[in-house]
Amino acid sequence: MTLRFGILAFPAVQQLDLSGPYELFASAPDAEVHLLWKDCAPLRSATGLILTPTTRFADCPPLDVLCVPGGGGINALLEDAETLAFVREQATRARFVTSVCTGALVLGAAGLLIGKRATTHWNAVDFLARYGAIPTEGRVVQDGALITAGGVTAGIDFGLTVIAALLGQTEAETIQLCLEYAPAPPFQAGTPQEAPAPVLAAARQRLAPSRAAREAILASGRAPGVTA
Amino acid sequence: MTLRFGILAFPAVQQLDLSGPYELFASAPDAEVHLLWKDCAPLRSATGLILTPTTRFADCPPLDVLCVPGGGGINALLEDAETLAFVREQATRARFVTSVCTGALVLGAAGLLIGKRATTHWNAVDFLARYGAIPTEGRVVQDGALITAGGVTAGIDFGLTVIAALLGQTEAETIQLCLEYAPAPPFQAGTPQEAPAPVLAAARQRLAPSRAAREAILASGRAPGVTA
Repeated sequence: MTLRFGILAFPAVQQLDLSGPYELFASAPDAEVHLLWKDCAPLRSATGLILTPTTRFADCPPLDVLCVPGGGGINALLEDAETLAFVREQATRARFVTSVCTGALVLGAAGLLIGKRATTHWNAVDFLARYGAIPTEGRVVQDGALITAGGVTAGIDFGLTVIAALLGQTEAETIQLCLEYAPAPPFQAGTPQEAPAPVLAAARQRLAPSRAAREAILASGRAPGVTA
Repeated sequence: MTLRFGILAFPAVQQLDLSGPYELFASAPDAEVHLLWKDCAPLRSATGLILTPTTRFADCPPLDVLCVPGGGGINALLEDAETLAFVREQATRARFVTSVCTGALVLGAAGLLIGKRATTHWNAVDFLARYGAIPTEGRVVQDGALITAGGVTAGIDFGLTVIAALLGQTEAETIQLCLEYAPAPPFQAGTPQEAPAPVLAAARQRLAPSRAAREAILASGRAPGVTA
């Protein structure tokens, strides 16, 4: 039976949040992967790569997996009634409702994190509680039908977890081997705990503008889903 | 000074071979990343994601880094005089000539691997010697200005290596932290050595059609660059 995956694609999405899980999902036998947006015009991701949505919200079939990636572009979604209504509606039917990176905050704005264990990018973890979630350590965190992943590259570990949940460990391992996923980072600086202090400071500075804009939205008193 | 990265984008490219390094390269300060092809019409990657080239071969500026990703689509490139001439010409000027996954075979067909240490996807390693390369263990293998990476996801480790070579370890670590690259695969099946035997058999079977087509091209006696 065809598995239907839907990944939200929006302006200024972090493309690797999307393209990592995409490759895992699309490598499964008899899988359909929809890139979902309001229309199918090509759009520019946060780092410039052009992505082309395949399926309009209005045409989206019932999904097995709904996945919301992150990136600077989520800021606009946190107040976007049309997108939040779509996410909320799909979430009532999907087997798994999922996010990568700051995509978790969009699930929060849609009211889907209340009382749930969840994770997000390390630089956005403090926003989770404001959407009523229980911030939880882990590169991939599952709470029932909700699966959230950490920042950007966590989407690959997440994709394997989702494939295993749907199709079993052997299928996940087969895809892992085809994609030669035996990571060997040349440096150990992928978390705030591991990174040297100057690296952490530089990363925080680089991420600051997007974070400040997000903070302003949540502080406005008008942002949907905010509970604290 | 602007760093110019050029990544070959072609029909049936394995999109994660491309999108992994893209995200690393494009995250560097003052970087331009060109997706290079004969024209700029949108094209379909191996798993379906639509990619849109940004720069025609004819318009390509001198590159600091030329990167050839892999995927089923490389088979056509192994005999494609126009693409091979472009790769060969850019290679004379680039600071680093690089590949991810089976993109290495395109470098081989362009005559750029002779006597060089190189790697590729585990299921294509035996093709390297036929292009005169010295097949070498390693997820990322550097031989002077030539940097080759293993299969698909190795492109992320590779991207960090390239950034460090160009901009230093602190810049590479800053990008690593922003992308939260602290991988934690849920399974240990990313190499033929680690994968259970049934998983290896399933992966080989899944990759067999593309491999057979490649084998036929190399056996034809007409394929450029073949030395053995």
